[in-house]
Amino acid sequence: MSLAPVSFFALPGIPLIEPGDDLASLLAGVLRENGLGLVEGDILVIAQKIVSKAEGLYIDLDEVKPSRQAQELAEKLGKDPRHVEVVLSESGEIVKVGQHVIVAAHKLGFVMANAGIDESNISHGESGNRVLLLPRDPDGSAAKLKQRLGEIFGASIGVVINDSFGRPWRNGVVGVALGAAGVPSLVDRVGSKDLFGRTLRVTEIAVADELASAASLLMGQADEGLPAVLVRGFRSTAPSRDASSLIRNRERDMFR
Amino acid sequence: MSLAPVSFFALPGIPLIEPGDDLASLLAGVLRENGLGLVEGDILVIAQKIVSKAEGLYIDLDEVKPSRQAQELAEKLGKDPRHVEVVLSESGEIVKVGQHVIVAAHKLGFVMANAGIDESNISHGESGNRVLLLPRDPDGSAAKLKQRLGEIFGASIGVVINDSFGRPWRNGVVGVALGAAGVPSLVDRVGSKDLFGRTLRVTEIAVADELASAASLLMGQADEGLPAVLVRGFRSTAPSRDASSLIRNRERDMFR
Repeated sequence: MSLAPVSFFALPGIPLIEPGDDLASLLAGVLRENGLGLVEGDILVIAQKIVSKAEGLYIDLDEVKPSRQAQELAEKLGKDPRHVEVVLSESGEIVKVGQHVIVAAHKLGFVMANAGIDESNISHGESGNRVLLLPRDPDGSAAKLKQRLGEIFGASIGVVINDSFGRPWRNGVVGVALGAAGVPSLVDRVGSKDLFGRTLRVTEIAVADELASAASLLMGQADEGLPAVLVRGFRSTAPSRDASSLIRNRERDMFR
Repeated sequence: MSLAPVSFFALPGIPLIEPGDDLASLLAGVLRENGLGLVEGDILVIAQKIVSKAEGLYIDLDEVKPSRQAQELAEKLGKDPRHVEVVLSESGEIVKVGQHVIVAAHKLGFVMANAGIDESNISHGESGNRVLLLPRDPDGSAAKLKQRLGEIFGASIGVVINDSFGRPWRNGVVGVALGAAGVPSLVDRVGSKDLFGRTLRVTEIAVADELASAASLLMGQADEGLPAVLVRGFRSTAPSRDASSLIRNRERDMFR
């Protein structure tokens, strides 16, 4: 008897995404070209960048008027004041300003660097000054993709939209779930007993973040251009929860 | 042509580990029983708990004399003062004291809850009061396991020792790398160009943490008792680095 693995497939051949592209059809085509399709229980992890591009979430910096606060912060950080203005307008609360980075709570709740605004891998307009925002409703975007892809392949699947986040205390970025559908994003272990029958101390597992990190291993960054990863064979009996369940309430947060 | 996946196999049948157990032989046996073995480039992710158990890193709380600081903190937190004493003696700096948790920098550098001391899945002595410490040198432990397992199977492999960490700002724990050998724990992307030829903004990827999180998906917690995961098919051209490279220097840390 051989062990059944959980397998991760990075999908080659995804073209550059343009605003208005039908991501579900496009991913379905790429899955078929690679002889894969989707079966019951499969999970597709999709890079935030291609979701935002398909949703056309570009801002042309030439049309941004920086506020005084943005100008002051930009001077301190050595950044483009228009870029800082976009970061501030995407954010609720500023958590910390570092030497080169603004750590802020995005309006969606994510505490992250520069409100998740990334200038890499964006085809710039003639002005060369476009930036790309996060999806307006990442759980909603994931739910739509889940539904469309589920219809195309006739299977109940999961979708995770991931991004790379830095962390306090540790070097390097890791994949994190911005949005999810059909996935137990946060698994509650309250009441579970450990091997010796006592109640577990650790009660919640951030499953969607672990899926996001695992997929990120295969996406690499940039060069490789592999913005979608199929996860096959992952089983869980826990109920589906949105990725928003991973955001800690401000009142329960020791670090802001 | 079919796509080559990265496959994760959780290894069933690992017995409860006792101090002095030869973890490498034991894992080799379990790999063979499951028809797997190890081939060039394979990575084995091993739960901290079984490494610490094999290394016999138990402390009997009945032999711990709590300091005054430990007593005061224990009262505030509603914890056993002897437990708090062990946390303090394992830690360098206290980063934050929450309602139920001490977040501290372990002497090894990890900023974590309760110095990584875990009371679940530990077979208690007659006193019922043993706790288990982190390995004294996790990268060293990983290197020894890498060497022994490499000799047994005649292949150059990687080893990651993982644990579950909470994080600021997000709910749930994720797998994190405490130790690693033969793995590009932190991949430096300085100089890499993105798809549009510009230099990448994100420069370092915490690959060993992403491997730790991915494996953690299969380990589950407690009940399942699956403390080792084989990763097959992960390729990287980046040089090997210890997991200690993932610890951010205090001077470069915005959050302490």
